[in-house]
Amino acid sequence: MSAPPSAPRRRSERSRRAIYDAALSLVGEIGYPRTTIEGIAARAGVGKQTIYRWWSSKADVLLEAFLDLGDGPAPPALPDTGDLAADLKAVLRATVDTLRDPRFDTPARALAAEGVVDAELGRRVVAQLLQPSLQLYVDRLRAAQRAGDVRPGIDPRIALELFVSPLAQRWLQHTAPFSYEYTDTLVDYALYGLVPR
Amino acid sequence: MSAPPSAPRRRSERSRRAIYDAALSLVGEIGYPRTTIEGIAARAGVGKQTIYRWWSSKADVLLEAFLDLGDGPAPPALPDTGDLAADLKAVLRATVDTLRDPRFDTPARALAAEGVVDAELGRRVVAQLLQPSLQLYVDRLRAAQRAGDVRPGIDPRIALELFVSPLAQRWLQHTAPFSYEYTDTLVDYALYGLVPR
Repeated sequence: MSAPPSAPRRRSERSRRAIYDAALSLVGEIGYPRTTIEGIAARAGVGKQTIYRWWSSKADVLLEAFLDLGDGPAPPALPDTGDLAADLKAVLRATVDTLRDPRFDTPARALAAEGVVDAELGRRVVAQLLQPSLQLYVDRLRAAQRAGDVRPGIDPRIALELFVSPLAQRWLQHTAPFSYEYTDTLVDYALYGLVPR
Repeated sequence: MSAPPSAPRRRSERSRRAIYDAALSLVGEIGYPRTTIEGIAARAGVGKQTIYRWWSSKADVLLEAFLDLGDGPAPPALPDTGDLAADLKAVLRATVDTLRDPRFDTPARALAAEGVVDAELGRRVVAQLLQPSLQLYVDRLRAAQRAGDVRPGIDPRIALELFVSPLAQRWLQHTAPFSYEYTDTLVDYALYGLVPR
């Protein structure tokens, strides 16, 4: 068993959480370009040196705030009940719930928008936030290949895009509403194809 | 035969083209929020009243400039050789070429990024630029359904997202490079599915 955190450690944790909350709410309200370390510090009620002690840039603060939004480390794996379609549908339904939560939607949208025009930020968002999640789909699809549920020649990194990208795209571009029925349909189309069997 | 354009009409066309070019290059350089009618007018070498005579907002100018980028009205239909996979692969390869053209990429990226955070602009981009192109895929997939090449129960508006959205997503989010091989693979996976037949 680890020792309980000391009082100064607990104070640090409270500051850290206040800074995450300030960073996420601020970027959602005024966008990434106008968000500053000073603004985050003012809203969190800390000195800006407190922020610079832990992070070197606003991108660092924001990326870590997003990592923390999940309340802990990412799950190590997607569910594997042996029913690939059911497992993917469950995960995409949970993603629909997350995308509909304004606590996530507004700041994530601001960060995604900036990643579209700022290539360096885009690369960091992909490497630190997106790729670890996508790897879970790769792992699940590889397990399905071993079980004979996915064709052997399929590249899992491309295959996952058939259901993940349409949902992301509807979310980012407001092209059409999304629902559980929609994500279920994506999984069915991706797994069984469009042409008659 | 229609009469040749009069001299004043030709001058108008030259101004209009200069305004489109100025709007596209400016938004690519400084982003949508900082692009102004005044800035577009200055770069195009026209008075801002010339712009206000034809358009009521910078969004109007930009959306029309993009519509004009295709050099004329959109094609009325996707190719239909009777080979659905080949037709879709040809169209997506052409899309890869367009997305790699900096004349298109930079301003389109700026407009797409703003559409992510500005819901009203996002809706206009979708309705005026995106939806008409997507409708061509809907029409092609419906023709394939009539020919028995796509399962009857498939919703073409969702089906097209299996290959269109992954390409858009890789382009917008720099998640991974794209190539003809990649788009060919998307079409094959979407049409024939991931699970063994």
